[in-house]
Amino acid sequence: MSFITLLTDFGIRDGAVGLMKGVIWRIAPEAKIADLSHAIAPQNLQEAAVVLRFAAPYFPPDTVHIAVVDPGVGTDRRPIAARLGEYYFVGPDNGLCTPLLEMAEASGGPVEIVHTNKPQFWLPEVSHVFHGRDIFSPIGAYLAAGTPLAELGTPIDDPVLLALPQPQPRENGWRGEVIFIDDFGNVHTNLLRHHLQPLGEVRVRLCGVEIEGMVRTFGERPADSLIALYGTEHDLMVSVVNGNATQRLGAKIGDVVEVDGR
Amino acid sequence: MSFITLLTDFGIRDGAVGLMKGVIWRIAPEAKIADLSHAIAPQNLQEAAVVLRFAAPYFPPDTVHIAVVDPGVGTDRRPIAARLGEYYFVGPDNGLCTPLLEMAEASGGPVEIVHTNKPQFWLPEVSHVFHGRDIFSPIGAYLAAGTPLAELGTPIDDPVLLALPQPQPRENGWRGEVIFIDDFGNVHTNLLRHHLQPLGEVRVRLCGVEIEGMVRTFGERPADSLIALYGTEHDLMVSVVNGNATQRLGAKIGDVVEVDGR
Amino acid sequence: MSFITLLTDFGIRDGAVGLMKGVIWRIAPEAKIADLSHAIAPQNLQEAAVVLRFAAPYFPPDTVHIAVVDPGVGTDRRPIAARLGEYYFVGPDNGLCTPLLEMAEASGGPVEIVHTNKPQFWLPEVSHVFHGRDIFSPIGAYLAAGTPLAELGTPIDDPVLLALPQPQPRENGWRGEVIFIDDFGNVHTNLLRHHLQPLGEVRVRLCGVEIEGMVRTFGERPADSLIALYGTEHDLMVSVVNGNATQRLGAKIGDVVEVDGR
Repeated sequence: MSFITLLTDFGIRDGAVGLMKGVIWRIAPEAKIADLSHAIAPQNLQEAAVVLRFAAPYFPPDTVHIAVVDPGVGTDRRPIAARLGEYYFVGPDNGLCTPLLEMAEASGGPVEIVHTNKPQFWLPEVSHVFHGRDIFSPIGAYLAAGTPLAELGTPIDDPVLLALPQPQPRENGWRGEVIFIDDFGNVHTNLLRHHLQPLGEVRVRLCGVEIEGMVRTFGERPADSLIALYGTEHDLMVSVVNGNATQRLGAKIGDVVEVDGR
Repeated sequence: MSFITLLTDFGIRDGAVGLMKGVIWRIAPEAKIADLSHAIAPQNLQEAAVVLRFAAPYFPPDTVHIAVVDPGVGTDRRPIAARLGEYYFVGPDNGLCTPLLEMAEASGGPVEIVHTNKPQFWLPEVSHVFHGRDIFSPIGAYLAAGTPLAELGTPIDDPVLLALPQPQPRENGWRGEVIFIDDFGNVHTNLLRHHLQPLGEVRVRLCGVEIEGMVRTFGERPADSLIALYGTEHDLMVSVVNGNATQRLGAKIGDVVEVDGR
Repeated sequence: MSFITLLTDFGIRDGAVGLMKGVIWRIAPEAKIADLSHAIAPQNLQEAAVVLRFAAPYFPPDTVHIAVVDPGVGTDRRPIAARLGEYYFVGPDNGLCTPLLEMAEASGGPVEIVHTNKPQFWLPEVSHVFHGRDIFSPIGAYLAAGTPLAELGTPIDDPVLLALPQPQPRENGWRGEVIFIDDFGNVHTNLLRHHLQPLGEVRVRLCGVEIEGMVRTFGERPADSLIALYGTEHDLMVSVVNGNATQRLGAKIGDVVEVDGR
């Protein structure tokens, strides 16, 4: 049994994602395929990386994560495939692999990356605008079907890395930023539990609003309350109970969030 | 072969639905998974129940229906799993199981419900905000993989029920309400064929507009006609031929619809 | 291993697409199902045909393509199933099969069409409004499960064909039109590489704007540049580098595009 995930900024209206499954099943008919998201904002590598970091680790070992957010398609940016810890990554060499690479390094797992430069593993004809179909889907399918990574290209050790925004310490706390907004309108930041816990009771500032203290769960406050709590990734999250914090605050990715001990 | 469906209000942008499939496949690698909808309005239990009632009965026997619309996540509302007639249900104990429970009772099928309170069947770490991932996906996967329901929790017989709006008789007809709006903008009501048929020829009133009589199919009237007909569930449906009745009428869920014999 | 694709204008909010998978798996539990698109504009046959032509050819041989954009549902328009070259088609007899039929004829592949008029291969109860569920899903599933096409209905040789807009020659070039707009806002036309290549250097006119020459790939111009290039189907495509050409130009399907040699 082999598993593949797809993460793109292609949308789901025009058939592009659907046909990638056709390309995959021609090579790996047994593969089970899950869509992570196809609604990444066009060419937004950071958003794609956040979604990949969030979702990828829940899949079975050896799952092939194909991620195609690819502003450089058709230029000389390299297509790559990699063994990164428990998983395979396939996509453009533009930093998208960074979350999986960091997880692999943190866990001491294997890291092996190849430039997938062997046309015999691509579709016979490669366009200048759709490598998701012509290169990444067949490469991912060959991995799922058991072809060794090393056969698919030439080893490299200089993948492009994505510099995700890092929290900065302040006198009495931390300064972070909004890195994701989920479908409920919850505002996710790059401040994690391990940053905040040493501060004790905290005050959260975002978009000109202050929130005193954190709650453990939505149910601790009445509907429409603005709250701060830890999200699924132990990330500081700002929410409105039964409502939409992003609309309430006008928050957007990149907005500054400051947290101080009280 | 085992089948699982997913019904949530999570949207499909942020990877949350995708990773639930990863959680499932780690436990039940053979499971085939279908998305029913992830565009339920946030926390709207009634809309989710209507979709579940509409879609669930078409799946093979023993399909596991995981439904997560969960305003009480992280509070003491119980997570449950149930055998309800031909199907399994997994989700929060907030009334979402009502449609399957009613169908089971109507057909005389088995009804067996457990409070899924055994952490060995959850993910090792359970967040306060995402039981879809941490509890419901693994529980659904264990059912799909053949674990007996009784092993997954403690029996209960007092599930929370959802009171769906019921039609009220009028002097010469029925008073119902709009319970769903589909993607074509067709307006679905809780009045059924068996309510209306004894009335003979009918007049339908909705949003200040009257429709005389019902048609059998869209093709009986020219484009842009406002019509009343029976929908796929034998429900009274108001539509615009090749158009959008919801936009035309400004209809919304909860609007009153009155039907009288003529 | 058998494969089915689904292409509809049903949207993905109300469960209609999800339950089609249930209907299919009851008959063909092994079938793997891919969504091509469910966001076709309501009743827009041309858009559905463009997506089908784009996506269908990438699937394994014998894939069953179920396409349901069906303004005539419930009237006497015929339901059909067909062997068209490498693939099966199932859907209403309203022209949707045209792209697969043309491909089959171009390649000399088999063409065999039946009117699926045998109720034993439908759901037991057939509504007037949802043949995607009641007729097309079970017919597609029987094909995927190995039932011979000839058993499912009566042969016909007069399928309805869709007249897709054809390019017209001009004195020094071609006059075509916009036939599709993808999720990035790229504007796709019905002018193909083989029309334009004999012209040498070209000038493209669309929505009152002129573009001098074509590029090979997005990376050849800076961000925000309006460019003309060949799309994935060797179609003339107008794009904005890292932007949205449809919004920039106000382009819509049916707009005229003129290309002249310089």
